[in-house]
Amino acid sequence: MQQSLLAHTPEPPYYAVIFSSVKNHVADGYDEMAAEMDKLVRQQDGFLGVESARNDVGITVSYWSSLDAIRNWKANTQHLLAQKLGREEWYINYKVRICRIERDYEF
Amino acid sequence: MQQSLLAHTPEPPYYAVIFSSVKNHVADGYDEMAAEMDKLVRQQDGFLGVESARNDVGITVSYWSSLDAIRNWKANTQHLLAQKLGREEWYINYKVRICRIERDYEF
Repeated sequence: MQQSLLAHTPEPPYYAVIFSSVKNHVADGYDEMAAEMDKLVRQQDGFLGVESARNDVGITVSYWSSLDAIRNWKANTQHLLAQKLGREEWYINYKVRICRIERDYEF
Repeated sequence: MQQSLLAHTPEPPYYAVIFSSVKNHVADGYDEMAAEMDKLVRQQDGFLGVESARNDVGITVSYWSSLDAIRNWKANTQHLLAQKLGREEWYINYKVRICRIERDYEF
């Protein structure tokens, strides 16, 4: 079962969005929105998987089949609202990095 | 201060290693080794920064100036020992993804 905690991605190349963030202490609505976005992202065309963890820093890595799929997700109406609320309510700062996976291996 | 929790990376392109893992319940020596590797990685040529978090899944993303720098770190003698012990003692499974950061933005 624990195997499934890691995203089952295809052979490279594919793409990833590394979303690193520092939250403030405002909790209102955050968990609900995070759960909603987690559900929504899995329904997007080109979505391949997601991994997420948070301590002082939160890191969510989502995997995608193409840069177009990433652009579409960024422009998704419900996601745009989540991004706006994130900046206004929940995050002290964040960084988004778009990358191309060249190679992978596992144990 | 919290700003510094996110890695201060240069303008893209640069490279990243996304290390995603699921730990078992063996704690012996893990924290010490993790601290040692965190110290050691920061001394490597081409190292740009690192971000890390762990809940059910652990995600450590290290940033690098080149693929050669990543290769050198993977082949570092002390790191090789850590990788071996990781497979034998601490990890149920892990996945390593090597990628090229094409674009980034922050808030």
